Amino acid sequence: MARTVLRGVFPYLVSPVDARGRVKERVLAELVEHLIAKGVHGLTPLGSTGEFAYLGWEQRRRIVEVVVAAARGRVPVVAGVASTATADAVAQAAAFEEIGADGILAVMETYFPIPEDGIVDYFRAIAKAVACPVVLYTNPNFDRSVLTLPALSRLAAVPNVRYLKDASTNTGRLLSIRNALGDRLRIFAASAHIPAAVMMIGGVGWMAGPACLVPAESVRLYDLCRTGKWPQAMRLQRRLWQVNQVFAKYSLAACIKGGLEMQGFKVGAPVPPQPALSREGRAEIRRVLASLGAL
Amino acid sequence: MARTVLRGVFPYLVSPVDARGRVKERVLAELVEHLIAKGVHGLTPLGSTGEFAYLGWEQRRRIVEVVVAAARGRVPVVAGVASTATADAVAQAAAFEEIGADGILAVMETYFPIPEDGIVDYFRAIAKAVACPVVLYTNPNFDRSVLTLPALSRLAAVPNVRYLKDASTNTGRLLSIRNALGDRLRIFAASAHIPAAVMMIGGVGWMAGPACLVPAESVRLYDLCRTGKWPQAMRLQRRLWQVNQVFAKYSLAACIKGGLEMQGFKVGAPVPPQPALSREGRAEIRRVLASLGAL
Amino acid sequence: MARTVLRGVFPYLVSPVDARGRVKERVLAELVEHLIAKGVHGLTPLGSTGEFAYLGWEQRRRIVEVVVAAARGRVPVVAGVASTATADAVAQAAAFEEIGADGILAVMETYFPIPEDGIVDYFRAIAKAVACPVVLYTNPNFDRSVLTLPALSRLAAVPNVRYLKDASTNTGRLLSIRNALGDRLRIFAASAHIPAAVMMIGGVGWMAGPACLVPAESVRLYDLCRTGKWPQAMRLQRRLWQVNQVFAKYSLAACIKGGLEMQGFKVGAPVPPQPALSREGRAEIRRVLASLGAL
Amino acid sequence: MARTVLRGVFPYLVSPVDARGRVKERVLAELVEHLIAKGVHGLTPLGSTGEFAYLGWEQRRRIVEVVVAAARGRVPVVAGVASTATADAVAQAAAFEEIGADGILAVMETYFPIPEDGIVDYFRAIAKAVACPVVLYTNPNFDRSVLTLPALSRLAAVPNVRYLKDASTNTGRLLSIRNALGDRLRIFAASAHIPAAVMMIGGVGWMAGPACLVPAESVRLYDLCRTGKWPQAMRLQRRLWQVNQVFAKYSLAACIKGGLEMQGFKVGAPVPPQPALSREGRAEIRRVLASLGAL
Repeated sequence: MARTVLRGVFPYLVSPVDARGRVKERVLAELVEHLIAKGVHGLTPLGSTGEFAYLGWEQRRRIVEVVVAAARGRVPVVAGVASTATADAVAQAAAFEEIGADGILAVMETYFPIPEDGIVDYFRAIAKAVACPVVLYTNPNFDRSVLTLPALSRLAAVPNVRYLKDASTNTGRLLSIRNALGDRLRIFAASAHIPAAVMMIGGVGWMAGPACLVPAESVRLYDLCRTGKWPQAMRLQRRLWQVNQVFAKYSLAACIKGGLEMQGFKVGAPVPPQPALSREGRAEIRRVLASLGAL
Repeated sequence: MARTVLRGVFPYLVSPVDARGRVKERVLAELVEHLIAKGVHGLTPLGSTGEFAYLGWEQRRRIVEVVVAAARGRVPVVAGVASTATADAVAQAAAFEEIGADGILAVMETYFPIPEDGIVDYFRAIAKAVACPVVLYTNPNFDRSVLTLPALSRLAAVPNVRYLKDASTNTGRLLSIRNALGDRLRIFAASAHIPAAVMMIGGVGWMAGPACLVPAESVRLYDLCRTGKWPQAMRLQRRLWQVNQVFAKYSLAACIKGGLEMQGFKVGAPVPPQPALSREGRAEIRRVLASLGAL
Repeated sequence: MARTVLRGVFPYLVSPVDARGRVKERVLAELVEHLIAKGVHGLTPLGSTGEFAYLGWEQRRRIVEVVVAAARGRVPVVAGVASTATADAVAQAAAFEEIGADGILAVMETYFPIPEDGIVDYFRAIAKAVACPVVLYTNPNFDRSVLTLPALSRLAAVPNVRYLKDASTNTGRLLSIRNALGDRLRIFAASAHIPAAVMMIGGVGWMAGPACLVPAESVRLYDLCRTGKWPQAMRLQRRLWQVNQVFAKYSLAACIKGGLEMQGFKVGAPVPPQPALSREGRAEIRRVLASLGAL
Repeated sequence: MARTVLRGVFPYLVSPVDARGRVKERVLAELVEHLIAKGVHGLTPLGSTGEFAYLGWEQRRRIVEVVVAAARGRVPVVAGVASTATADAVAQAAAFEEIGADGILAVMETYFPIPEDGIVDYFRAIAKAVACPVVLYTNPNFDRSVLTLPALSRLAAVPNVRYLKDASTNTGRLLSIRNALGDRLRIFAASAHIPAAVMMIGGVGWMAGPACLVPAESVRLYDLCRTGKWPQAMRLQRRLWQVNQVFAKYSLAACIKGGLEMQGFKVGAPVPPQPALSREGRAEIRRVLASLGAL
């Protein structure tokens, strides 16, 4: 399993949950089927767009079970593990691998500031608990456990820590990581980055919410980048970037859930107290999706 | 229950948990007995010092059960409810009241930014789920859901929302709240504030980790403040402030757990990846406690 | 000169400048006369309310000349020195002492982050350039050169560095400084602090913009504090706090200049691009001043 | 003059000043000659690397005079205007155009927060004061006057506001600006961005300190980008990025001044209290320059 190679477009799946907190399993399975049909290279349940921070353990486990079952091995499933506590994260990771996840996206939530040794220990413990590849996730805007270059360097020495998804907005930081660690830690862009730019500096793909709404176009962009057709890639990138702009402007889960509803997937609203997409936000996402032929 | 009046010194209890995650029930009950014997006016399990952000539901519930049972109604128990999700917080609050908590300390954790309406809804939903008084808790340094004056004003209109524990360090903010809301929202200081100063501007007590280590002195300070003996209060306050200074400098739970171990309570270390108190921190807390006659 | 003792209420003077940038000397002299008549204990031209950051050297020098001349030695004048560059600050300080200032308020502006040694050197160089007492000024909200406790400790060893004006909003920080340095560094509150609370923990007065608008009431508050009449002090403090609240809400210079215009002093508007007080702000400051009998 | 087209590599010149504050005119002229000989497309005195925030008006004026005289019209000189006050900035801009600058780099320094209208007015007033093109400069890390997309949109309507130099590290922000404003506002990268990535998304060059140390290589990178040789561009970019990494790690002016001293230009140390490059920093910059054949 640690040999699994991850690359390409991995939509961050939303987590469809009804008003009573039950996972809407059929809708989630339909979304998985749809995205695989559009050619995505993998699936990431329980990323930030997947509202991991708002779901309990039973909900999280059910979501991974549904996604793994629906994917039927056609594409790798990289499940999000997130906690403040090391032991809890380790238990989540082991359970997800047992269910059949092909990789773990490891997120560290924080309440108190944690020194760098503690941060490294947290991610290392997750990696040791599984045989599959681990994608480190760092998002300085939300989770406050910034993975510094020295910390990344220590973590890249763990055999199955093989990828980084960085949501820092700082593309230069990615090049510094590439220069320091090369292929020891392969980079996935987040929605905060321009995928084509990250591909040009050596990234292997992107893991992001917007790809849920424009999967086919995302795959096309990936193919253009991979074959070095940069002018065509940039033309497409510019058009697709509108989705990222809306995504950054409105609440993440609200935005993707709202857009999926427009596309016919009854994924519902974000978990309260997160607000549903505003009327203004709905109009904007509708306009953007229409202009991209994605409605 | 909503008639319960909260005032005075409420130590933020630590959460003694062993390496396998089990609550150390006997140690916790001993600590409760000790603090009541020293005269504290109430007990607050699952505050920030209580590491709520690092504990699962079973651990949290057991801790409240043990504290309520050990307190035997001698002092009110105000249990900490903390979540990102409204429904989860409501369930916690209802369960704690059922167990016998006399009040709820309501904390809102965040991952994504939540608009003010959502923040108000979160706290309001907790208050509606219980009959006992609710203490709002806001800590701009850690939880990022700042309760603005307009938000506090809306919440103070809920009958059982009666107290605020503010950990902002900004004493002027407390006076602004006093001026705007008067006794509709009574104020407890946090360890980030100088208790005597907060008492002088109209506070009703403090809820804080340091009172675990110096309960008798804290009660004496409260009595001096309440009887208007400000010069004596300030002399004592200055000496006690050393505990707050150490507490702010080292990790909260590590500091109080480390100090309690020195006092003979086998409360153990903080939940990983939080580090245990460093050698340097241990020396400093030992020196401070010794100088206060608290060893 | 270094023997001059500073204590009490020091209004931060506004800097009346006309549309062509000329200092409105007569208005400034009238304001000085008015404030002295109301009993203030000193005057501080070129504090933050004095818009030092928006004035050139000729304007600054003229302002100090006018204030020193108008004060005629009746109260000490503490002139604000502010720069990013050490040599420039030293030149300003020497010039102000030559003009007749009785003390220097030393501010460090920053553009790039400066290491602590550089910060200490900057303030030390100013102190060495003059014989009069120096008031260190630190405002973490605006000037980004936070004076840490170790830095303050090093600076307090310079003989004429004798005071600190702290605008941090963190009253606990002041008590930590008191505990560490005692009378080696006496503390003036800023408008971000509650003066009565700072006096209770050992402060010697306050330097702040609001005292321009309510000088007599400020002096009365100071007297109540100094004589230990804390309940009466707090009653007055609560009413006066409204001025600080408005001051914090609207732009500093705009707020005080707007209020002084209402009191008949033709001090004009802040230096562009700072906006003048909004209509809403004018209504609020008018209401507050009226309620305090200060119109 | 407004027709002047700016594009390519514009080194941010250092400001060589001796211990007594006098501009080292000969050294500055030599540096200008050297950079033009290496093929740079323009020169930018008084950018952030040029320590504008640490220099007085006489120093600034002299620096622009020396650079304009030394450039002898061979490449455009874009002079940095920086102030907190609108009138002062306007005077600087007019004087620099009078001296012969071909463009103005407009920086807004702040002390108090300024509302967006004030920010727009500041930059608009500078543009109206000159006939030459204006480059807006925004650096959220240092100057705190963030130019939002709406503000940029308003400013792009001013005929001679034609360029933006953005130092935000957020490359996605640049693409959003490109999408919204197209060629109405052409983009120069700062050292915080990867020049090749910015060129790929439509930038016209870069204005940055590192180009002082590696001018020929920078020009070669620009040519590779301009002719669409992206794989070769990225290979070179990766090597050059090391200079940006060191630059970001150590103090800007110290780093470039230290490197130029190694290359034989006696530019001296940064203006105090900025520290000179540390021993460790010197070793690192020396290693990087050596590896690039730039010593």
